[in-house]
Amino acid sequence: VARRPRESQYPLVTVDQAVDTVLRETVKLGTESVSLKDALGKYLAEDVFAQDPLPPFPASIKDGYAIKASDGAGLRKVLGDSTAGDVPKNRVTAGYCLRISTGAPVPEGADSVIQVEDTQLTKEGDDGKTELEINVLKAPRIGQDIRPMGCDIGKGDKILCADMRLGPAELGLLATVGCAQVMCYKTPTVGVLSTGNELVEPDQPLRPGKIRDSNRTTLMAVLKEHGFTYVDLGVATDDPQSLMNLLRQALKSCDVIVTSGGVSMGEKDLLKAVLQADMHAKVHFGRVFMKPGKPTTFATAKYDGKKKLFFCLPGNPVSATVTCNLYVVPSLRKMSGNTTPLSSIVKAKVAADIHLDPRPEYHRCILTWQQDDPIPIATSTGNQLSSRLLSMRSANGLMILPEVKESKSKIEKHDLVDVMIIGYI
Amino acid sequence: VARRPRESQYPLVTVDQAVDTVLRETVKLGTESVSLKDALGKYLAEDVFAQDPLPPFPASIKDGYAIKASDGAGLRKVLGDSTAGDVPKNRVTAGYCLRISTGAPVPEGADSVIQVEDTQLTKEGDDGKTELEINVLKAPRIGQDIRPMGCDIGKGDKILCADMRLGPAELGLLATVGCAQVMCYKTPTVGVLSTGNELVEPDQPLRPGKIRDSNRTTLMAVLKEHGFTYVDLGVATDDPQSLMNLLRQALKSCDVIVTSGGVSMGEKDLLKAVLQADMHAKVHFGRVFMKPGKPTTFATAKYDGKKKLFFCLPGNPVSATVTCNLYVVPSLRKMSGNTTPLSSIVKAKVAADIHLDPRPEYHRCILTWQQDDPIPIATSTGNQLSSRLLSMRSANGLMILPEVKESKSKIEKHDLVDVMIIGYI
Ligand SMILES: [Mg+2]
Ligand SMILES: [Mg+2]
Repeated sequence: VARRPRESQYPLVTVDQAVDTVLRETVKLGTESVSLKDALGKYLAEDVFAQDPLPPFPASIKDGYAIKASDGAGLRKVLGDSTAGDVPKNRVTAGYCLRISTGAPVPEGADSVIQVEDTQLTKEGDDGKTELEINVLKAPRIGQDIRPMGCDIGKGDKILCADMRLGPAELGLLATVGCAQVMCYKTPTVGVLSTGNELVEPDQPLRPGKIRDSNRTTLMAVLKEHGFTYVDLGVATDDPQSLMNLLRQALKSCDVIVTSGGVSMGEKDLLKAVLQADMHAKVHFGRVFMKPGKPTTFATAKYDGKKKLFFCLPGNPVSATVTCNLYVVPSLRKMSGNTTPLSSIVKAKVAADIHLDPRPEYHRCILTWQQDDPIPIATSTGNQLSSRLLSMRSANGLMILPEVKESKSKIEKHDLVDVMIIGYI
Repeated sequence: VARRPRESQYPLVTVDQAVDTVLRETVKLGTESVSLKDALGKYLAEDVFAQDPLPPFPASIKDGYAIKASDGAGLRKVLGDSTAGDVPKNRVTAGYCLRISTGAPVPEGADSVIQVEDTQLTKEGDDGKTELEINVLKAPRIGQDIRPMGCDIGKGDKILCADMRLGPAELGLLATVGCAQVMCYKTPTVGVLSTGNELVEPDQPLRPGKIRDSNRTTLMAVLKEHGFTYVDLGVATDDPQSLMNLLRQALKSCDVIVTSGGVSMGEKDLLKAVLQADMHAKVHFGRVFMKPGKPTTFATAKYDGKKKLFFCLPGNPVSATVTCNLYVVPSLRKMSGNTTPLSSIVKAKVAADIHLDPRPEYHRCILTWQQDDPIPIATSTGNQLSSRLLSMRSANGLMILPEVKESKSKIEKHDLVDVMIIGYI
């Protein structure tokens, strides 16, 4: 250890540079055919066109009677009905009508629908069950309460475009047009590894010098919350051989590996060396000018002909969580076909003065909207020490605070700041 | 059909009344013990206290040397090291130091840590590998770069409260304090049923008079996106016996049943009657003064000693989706232990004039934030016909528009409106 460098050899890059580098090195995974029930949250790899018009026939908008508008208001003989799912057996001619239900096909000859509320029964059958004649109380218009064939979706219309996210409504559109199988971008499989001789599992008692590993639990939950698939790679001890074996094994099934710990200046911080020497990885950056998360390291390597990404996050729980949101999540989104992979940023008023740090700070906060103010309030979660996971509790935003300057040492109460959304609002 | 009522017997209730009724009739499900890996998104049913302090020992914040501050700047003999996970074997006495890594226990006798960047190596062993003496370049302070025992979490601290949502950070806190199993509220199982003789499955070709069922696909995806468990109950034909059998069967495994279709004024709209006659359900409301979604129906029944909820949504795809967001999602959230079950509402500027409807309208929109404006823009998704699922495409908000009045017939471009958030932003 004597001749180790006493300062980091990695230049400090800015957060913007780091994000740019990550996104530049991130490429979309391939495409695959996905069935409707597995497609939620995926991104389309193709445009989708309607094979049929919707509705596929002129359809009634109301429960009422299919009539000829030219008959005007007044009496009509009831010929029978047209209910949804049936094909009407009768034609409507002058003086006649068919009972019709919402969504049912408008029978031939009819050009208008009058809703039941605007009619009266004038003659019923002897059994008291059959309608024989009604009175139309309001003069109808041609086309009234009829959805023409194709009025919602025309045959051949492009209903969804490549790169769109498949949410509930988009899946409904696919179902409507009979597209039960669709080409989507693959979503990455992410291995999550913790490193450190000090770590024990959450269900284990503490022994002297040990702490429980929380980072895997948190990081896997961040990935799950964003809909990504993850593999629990466990804990690696601070030993180059063990690290290398774990990483090599993981690359067989993972597109991306997210680690925490092992990237600082300690003699047991072996990850950068192992990545370069054993995995032939290129380290794109090894330090970022930010708080928390300075030792964040990003590397790529070829393995079995495929490009693999390594996000080596700091070991401090808050640093790991913040940098996962800042770098890992956008990268995984881009890989999955999301063309706007960065998290949304909104402006908010800070709830109280905040002193600025020598580094640009990603300050955990809770965003809330007051009833009478269109601009949300950002409330700090308190002491921002990077080991203090309590500062992440309930946080749904990260205030993006500039580094301290002589001319500006604090953000004052009610000043506007940019807030990155990282949770439910 | 002759003597059927020609106007709905159900009074029109307001949306606020309907939401109040739903939430009043909704009760939290019971509690269950959940393991950490299954707890994401669940709500805590108990307060959680730390069994151990964090850190469980005074820990170094930096990679550097554990020293006595009273020695000041200057030379120190290097006794060995303290790395994370180990118990330091040596005491630090005057004139001596121990190499220490981030997170490692501070050895007895030391009261300060000096980071490696602020030191120089002054003497190394003959092998060139051992550090024998260093020079401390800056006068240290007592406690410098040391996290005292319990500084992040004190032993016995309440780290999470009952009713909190377990997100990634909260799960990390549970892992940290060794709480691998936790009492949470159960989440409901929701059966999703479509009704109508006109419906065919999404993967089936159209036949005359038929359309494809999109509502189940959309509604199941809304539930999945919100983390609820659902059961696909298929399609019921418009036949009381078939409806009743399906509902009875479903109640064996479902806490809540969500249907679409069958609640309007047509003669095949049988749901309300079946619920009341066959399921002995109480219909709390059968019409709501809103657009879309007027026929929305909500009922409750006892089954096997348990209270079951029925949300009978309209058959039009947009109506079903909007009312699912408005009524079903908050109810399921409350059932799951969420004490603030309503969706967030933000203020936004409308992008263009909107003409008001005779009914209060839930107008689909896309919320976006411009770089220079703290108030988001709400852009209509276009034609709001309730059959037009395209109006839900990419929508992440519902503008809550008042009914038209003589004094106010439209919302003008850049006016502020309330927008309910229904998707990712
Ligand atoms: Mg370590
Ligand atoms: Mg129907």
